[in-house]
Amino acid sequence: MNTKQALKIYKKQIEKIKAYTLVLDTTSFDRLTIAPKDGSTYRNKMISIINGELFELQTDKEFVEAVLYLCSQDLGEVMNREIALAKKAMEDQLKFTKEEAMTFSMALMEGNDAWRKAKSASKYALFETQLLKLIDLSKQRAAKRDPKKKAYDLLLDDYEEGMNQKKYDEFFKLIKTELLPLIKKIDRKKNYIDNSFLYKYYPAEKQAIFMEKIMKYLNFDPSWGYMGLTEHPFTNGLSRNDVRVTTHYYEHDISAAIFSLVHECGHAFYEHQVDPKFDNYLYIKQMSSGIHESQSRFFENYLARRESFFALLYPELQKLFPENLKDVTLEQFVKAVNESHCSLIRTRADELTYPIHILIRYELEKDIFAGKADLKNLDKEWNKKYKKYLGVEVKKDSEGILQDVHWSDASFGYFPTYALGSAIGAQIFKKMSEDLDVDKLLSTGKFKVITDYLKKNIQKYAALYNYETILKMASGEDFNPRYYIDYLKEKYQKLYDID
Amino acid sequence: MNTKQALKIYKKQIEKIKAYTLVLDTTSFDRLTIAPKDGSTYRNKMISIINGELFELQTDKEFVEAVLYLCSQDLGEVMNREIALAKKAMEDQLKFTKEEAMTFSMALMEGNDAWRKAKSASKYALFETQLLKLIDLSKQRAAKRDPKKKAYDLLLDDYEEGMNQKKYDEFFKLIKTELLPLIKKIDRKKNYIDNSFLYKYYPAEKQAIFMEKIMKYLNFDPSWGYMGLTEHPFTNGLSRNDVRVTTHYYEHDISAAIFSLVHECGHAFYEHQVDPKFDNYLYIKQMSSGIHESQSRFFENYLARRESFFALLYPELQKLFPENLKDVTLEQFVKAVNESHCSLIRTRADELTYPIHILIRYELEKDIFAGKADLKNLDKEWNKKYKKYLGVEVKKDSEGILQDVHWSDASFGYFPTYALGSAIGAQIFKKMSEDLDVDKLLSTGKFKVITDYLKKNIQKYAALYNYETILKMASGEDFNPRYYIDYLKEKYQKLYDID
Repeated sequence: MNTKQALKIYKKQIEKIKAYTLVLDTTSFDRLTIAPKDGSTYRNKMISIINGELFELQTDKEFVEAVLYLCSQDLGEVMNREIALAKKAMEDQLKFTKEEAMTFSMALMEGNDAWRKAKSASKYALFETQLLKLIDLSKQRAAKRDPKKKAYDLLLDDYEEGMNQKKYDEFFKLIKTELLPLIKKIDRKKNYIDNSFLYKYYPAEKQAIFMEKIMKYLNFDPSWGYMGLTEHPFTNGLSRNDVRVTTHYYEHDISAAIFSLVHECGHAFYEHQVDPKFDNYLYIKQMSSGIHESQSRFFENYLARRESFFALLYPELQKLFPENLKDVTLEQFVKAVNESHCSLIRTRADELTYPIHILIRYELEKDIFAGKADLKNLDKEWNKKYKKYLGVEVKKDSEGILQDVHWSDASFGYFPTYALGSAIGAQIFKKMSEDLDVDKLLSTGKFKVITDYLKKNIQKYAALYNYETILKMASGEDFNPRYYIDYLKEKYQKLYDID
Repeated sequence: MNTKQALKIYKKQIEKIKAYTLVLDTTSFDRLTIAPKDGSTYRNKMISIINGELFELQTDKEFVEAVLYLCSQDLGEVMNREIALAKKAMEDQLKFTKEEAMTFSMALMEGNDAWRKAKSASKYALFETQLLKLIDLSKQRAAKRDPKKKAYDLLLDDYEEGMNQKKYDEFFKLIKTELLPLIKKIDRKKNYIDNSFLYKYYPAEKQAIFMEKIMKYLNFDPSWGYMGLTEHPFTNGLSRNDVRVTTHYYEHDISAAIFSLVHECGHAFYEHQVDPKFDNYLYIKQMSSGIHESQSRFFENYLARRESFFALLYPELQKLFPENLKDVTLEQFVKAVNESHCSLIRTRADELTYPIHILIRYELEKDIFAGKADLKNLDKEWNKKYKKYLGVEVKKDSEGILQDVHWSDASFGYFPTYALGSAIGAQIFKKMSEDLDVDKLLSTGKFKVITDYLKKNIQKYAALYNYETILKMASGEDFNPRYYIDYLKEKYQKLYDID
């Protein structure tokens, strides 16, 4: 085999893999948004067959040989990185048989189906068996992949290259030490900020009209982006020019859909703004969760929770809901969407308490994979942590262990990237604020200047570099979680008039 | 090879084929309903790769050998039919290479993309090149499949087994001779029936609410059925318990969406009510277009254009649109939706003039495939036929040659099945009226008795038999188009008070 031959084999095979991925992603989006439930048994079986076919492509002998050959060649920066990532993925896959891959793909779909049923009935018992099965499978798979490594370290690295428990422990320790005292102080100032008007009646159809306005403001364009509805919002980049986001309307909470949509649009822009030169690559286009969340949390918090973001949008919202908002000023509205209190639901939490929701999940996952968690009482373990850190009582499973989709498809190790992404975002925001007049751009509807900045400094690279390198290039500094801590402390001390 | 081995190979392979079909169908539904347009180049390419993979499965050497072996065995009625259909499909596929199959699948998607663009701009020029390419490809493919047979005969048989130009000529001759004189008489009685209120302003969101009520009335259940929106309504049965229909709202025509939705629900019930014992078969589940259209046109016309159908539904419609309908009685409404006049759009035509729209397409397709049509002026040929038969002038391409989706994905030979299906439907309706008190069932909301009847007598068989056999079993008689002619003449002579 020579380099030319190996590259030819590689490129031909990844084109096929990309084709399978596209139809599987599309089917998955369909499954999560609109597919009738009675079709699920047949559908899941058929999808797992195609997953089996995909697995065969990914572990095809000639392909494996080509990757191994190419590993030892210098193919230039881009292709070197692509092949390194390919090798890593391939080595994992080769630890399994096709049947194991199909069984796992089936377990993910069944887990997700069960979770949806359980959440809508608010009954953990309807999901427990599936969850324990997924935990067990994930442990087995981790042990097979690398018996020497701790399972949870392996999973953390899956979602953010280079991360592990040691690094996260340090990060979360800082969060605990620095933020918990402030959170407690603020919790004593209940009702300091009035946000009751956010929880009046906001009919879904009219919320949808406002979401259209937000998407227009963000330049989330229907020619490359689509918004659907799901129980748990997510983003799926089917290709650079076909990015799907979803949202969920709560008719007694206008802020939920707004910030969740803006969050997903952050993900969407990342998928859309990757350098087109990577279109024919496979692994370089698979961006890590930490940077992905840095973009989504950037949109959601560092941009959308500013007064300037709502300068043009809030009058539109008032016009749509005069009965709820006509006497509420822009300033009051923006204060309200920044109000902080200890609460139950991660996706609807304010910026300050948010990392504590993540901390709770991180500790639980750590215990689960270290064999320290009481697996028969995971729901109660969950509730205990919420009581301990946030002082709140979980009264319904749907507001406790069932609230998030992630465990239903075995995305163990994903949660911490939300907090990490928030911290990365803070560092990027600090640099951007030095380079651009962010508030002026937001208040005059020049959102494109901001997305262009993110494209140029972060998004275009896709997974060519890891988060540490990209962040250093973008901000001129190593990753430093202090920016995140300082941002939160400064913002909330000011907002609540605390020294 | 023995029978057991051959059956094992067959079953394993068709399970894979079904899996590919499911993800491709899902991707196609997504493409036609929601997929962002900028993603189409990449998407079409990826889909054609998967189509190539599917083609390899369908023409796999071992599979072909198994089918050929099984052909000579007696495997019982069901499996004999399955294998006979498999052999027929396989023999066609084996005439082509994988590359040809991929090129054709790509041409279909590109044709459809171009048509959508052309239709929304109402510019035939934007579609012409693609259409001529599809015609050319279809001719080439027909010549390859069977050089001895006339191309159009081959295509007609694709959509309804056993049909050909000779049979259709006879059928359409009857339609021309018997119906055209009546159509002309009625055309002289313009404004005899007032239907102006159907064309007032009916906002799409409120139409959608009424469509929900219709679906409930029909027992089209969201647990197995889903309704989306497209330029051209269609039905896609992804599996027995996952059937998708689409509709299209015209804000100045309330009847369009109603009858189009009911039509598609007729298709949907057929897909849903097939005997579950066929779930693991492939070809038996591919029902012919003629019977399919007999079910959809049955719902649309023989049921939904009756006063009894609207007995419960019309008051709901009035409640939704009092400004348009409060002074319109049920009787007036039903007369209005049966009003007949020569018009331009097939899907919105009344029952009486409808087959003439089909006749026009049939004659055009016949000429195209006999090399007699002026290919450089197909739009003008279309317009001439409309002038000749219906006396109407086409002023916009979108209301002329661009109105239908079928040619955009090379479904040449499909149109005639609409008229054939209508005639089959008339014969079934006559028998059903003897067996059931249809009006009583409709007016009391017992639609399930009707769908159960159709299930038992027609739908459960899927493609186990051809239309002639199924019709004979269901009605006790051979196919007889006189029932259709008589039904239309009687109905419209009475409605227009003509002897």
